[in-house]
Amino acid sequence: MQADTVIEARWLIPVVPKNTVLEHMSVVISGGRIADILPTAQARLRYQSDDTVTLPESVVMPGLVNLHSHAAMNIIRGLGADLSLMDWLNTKIWPAEGKLMSADYVREGSLLAGREMAMSGVTCTSDQYFFPESAAEGLREAGLRCAVSGLVIGFPSAWGSGDEDYLAKSEALIRNHENDPFVHATIAPHAPYTVSDESLRRCADISERFGVPVHIHVNETAGEVEGSLKTYGLRPIERLTRLGLVNDRLIAVHSVHADASDIDKMAQAGSSMCHCPSSNLKLASGFAPLAAFMKAGVNVGIGTDGAASNDKLDMLGETRLAAMLAKAVAGDSTAAKVFDMLEAATLGGARALHWDQEIGSVETGKQADLIAVDLSGVECQPVQDPAAQLLYSAGRENVTHVWVAGQLIAEKILSVRYSEENCGFSLNSVAKKWQNML
Amino acid sequence: MQADTVIEARWLIPVVPKNTVLEHMSVVISGGRIADILPTAQARLRYQSDDTVTLPESVVMPGLVNLHSHAAMNIIRGLGADLSLMDWLNTKIWPAEGKLMSADYVREGSLLAGREMAMSGVTCTSDQYFFPESAAEGLREAGLRCAVSGLVIGFPSAWGSGDEDYLAKSEALIRNHENDPFVHATIAPHAPYTVSDESLRRCADISERFGVPVHIHVNETAGEVEGSLKTYGLRPIERLTRLGLVNDRLIAVHSVHADASDIDKMAQAGSSMCHCPSSNLKLASGFAPLAAFMKAGVNVGIGTDGAASNDKLDMLGETRLAAMLAKAVAGDSTAAKVFDMLEAATLGGARALHWDQEIGSVETGKQADLIAVDLSGVECQPVQDPAAQLLYSAGRENVTHVWVAGQLIAEKILSVRYSEENCGFSLNSVAKKWQNML
Repeated sequence: MQADTVIEARWLIPVVPKNTVLEHMSVVISGGRIADILPTAQARLRYQSDDTVTLPESVVMPGLVNLHSHAAMNIIRGLGADLSLMDWLNTKIWPAEGKLMSADYVREGSLLAGREMAMSGVTCTSDQYFFPESAAEGLREAGLRCAVSGLVIGFPSAWGSGDEDYLAKSEALIRNHENDPFVHATIAPHAPYTVSDESLRRCADISERFGVPVHIHVNETAGEVEGSLKTYGLRPIERLTRLGLVNDRLIAVHSVHADASDIDKMAQAGSSMCHCPSSNLKLASGFAPLAAFMKAGVNVGIGTDGAASNDKLDMLGETRLAAMLAKAVAGDSTAAKVFDMLEAATLGGARALHWDQEIGSVETGKQADLIAVDLSGVECQPVQDPAAQLLYSAGRENVTHVWVAGQLIAEKILSVRYSEENCGFSLNSVAKKWQNML
Repeated sequence: MQADTVIEARWLIPVVPKNTVLEHMSVVISGGRIADILPTAQARLRYQSDDTVTLPESVVMPGLVNLHSHAAMNIIRGLGADLSLMDWLNTKIWPAEGKLMSADYVREGSLLAGREMAMSGVTCTSDQYFFPESAAEGLREAGLRCAVSGLVIGFPSAWGSGDEDYLAKSEALIRNHENDPFVHATIAPHAPYTVSDESLRRCADISERFGVPVHIHVNETAGEVEGSLKTYGLRPIERLTRLGLVNDRLIAVHSVHADASDIDKMAQAGSSMCHCPSSNLKLASGFAPLAAFMKAGVNVGIGTDGAASNDKLDMLGETRLAAMLAKAVAGDSTAAKVFDMLEAATLGGARALHWDQEIGSVETGKQADLIAVDLSGVECQPVQDPAAQLLYSAGRENVTHVWVAGQLIAEKILSVRYSEENCGFSLNSVAKKWQNML
């Protein structure tokens, strides 16, 4: 049979089924979808393709799903390191956004971020920012699939005059992408402390009517929780529950200061938690109780946040950090296991976006959103546990191929020259020699 | 004047003086040392060289000093992810080491690790392992400068029969490298809980007689502190103080469970703390109080630890993690500032090793141990704060040139191909356009 593309992988981590590493498998792509998954020896008999990609030392896996970005902020990356949160916002971020905010800024910033993400293995991002149609344009130009947000925030901006305007524009955005295979929309009340009860209720209504996820920052700082208790007499998740937002469409971004009652409410409701560890550390927000969320069965995704608070849109790095932090926070090195984390970085994000019928795992019939990670470098050798080393040894620099809907959106070739000739090759044989003695 | 090499840097972060980013500077190398540092415009008039390296979008800085490695463990990387500490040691690490331990294993493992480190910008590592002469051979073969350890541990190994043997071999090692510009030696009692009072006292004596640093794991786990209180009635640092080890030659690796009294003792004594954040997180050891150490004026260095507990010998990544963690642990986003962290990763390590007269900063007369980090990639653009973005946006993948004593030991060329032609170039102009509007 003729196929558009055949990817021959040394290792395949399909995410579904879980805890699985398959060897010498081929992924067959036709019409942008995964047409077949079978041993390479069989695939070579059954399929022909003008585009066969042979990856003898790589892991192939689903593309990474970034569950929380502010893509356009790539343009203001690097502003205000080492400041306190309020100084950072007041003296750097808000003035910069004030100067630049426009559809063009959002489109071009999102293109930059989209490229950075594509190069590091992200095939889909869930963005939250002003001018979401422009964000979608930039992200699509970079080749990514995306969910963009109908942002609702309690102050005027270049994008909208206030709540009525934001809600109307958000509804239009959602309608505009109802049948779009590449761009989905969410409703995104910015945070409990920047949106009124009334507008939060209307967001809940929009979410229900259109079946779209609610993308909201929650429980990010201790101050937010204190403020909510003071103003409303309720913890943020309790308040959102009363306003009809805590259900299986909720994506609670950050959730650093979630307590046991919050986690329990979210688990009961089937809500999702989006963990952004670099941003939480760098802004000194704290340590999200990731292992507790996982133990309670809450669906978890990983997000990079924007380049202003996490200067690196690196989902592999973020997932590695999330795993290590979860172990230390729980005081348990068996927490946040490798396959749980690889699932969070892919299918977990897809589930949160209600997009898991189409993306998030390597399964026949799904969209061919795939990445290849090369483990041949000395930094990943010898390969004794491809899944663990993909997470803990490899980095975004080892991502070599990124496909969205079967289209190659990024390809990297790393040429390394040592001062000694061809040292790279003999080094790997050294590594393998010792591995064979174990 | 004729020079061996002239490096023309867009940005130079010399570390000394601190808090400094110089622009359009040249570093002139002769006889393996830094002969001059001057504006590139002047350097072009004053120096000729057959080896001029022009780096129009790179930061040049001192090579990274890895203050704690077990280089040979690269060969057993990837074993036993997600196990408890004791399962990991008993079922994976110790059996593997038992099978492989030999001079050859250490030399070849250290070569692999040395290559990985060289490729990520490390020019000097302080290693602790069995067969230190073999470790030095492997690390030198990879091009690195190193401090290797006279290891003393309370059980026999393939390298030694027991304390007497370890101490004698350690003393021989130290004598052997007394005038070696590339290989220094330390005395390395493994940890307070694996070495007797008597042997610790003899290590203190060796350290004093030869003026060599003491490289020891201390305060790594809560269990270690409890055990010490139970067995000796003393916290580990208190016990080491009584045994004559807490002075300006002490390198206290990990120091996760250091309390205020430990930090105070170390500050008074001029001791150094070596922070290994990835290892501490992954093994669920806990969170070292880095900001408290820095505030107390304790000299801080950064270490990767071995590839068995931190599967990535990535000093830039480790330093970024250290900075972010310190902020979150201290609850203060102004803690662990960019230049403090860049100093810890270079001069801090050199100081701990008593090697700071020769390495750790870009100063005239010092060894030409230098690296270049390219910031032209979309993941580092636009460059608004080169020091902050070196730490927070760049990664080991952006390290392009590594020199030790003026010799280029690693050079990388990253060729990136997008599905759209030459997108990389136009993207940077997009980034710069917006940067200019700020």
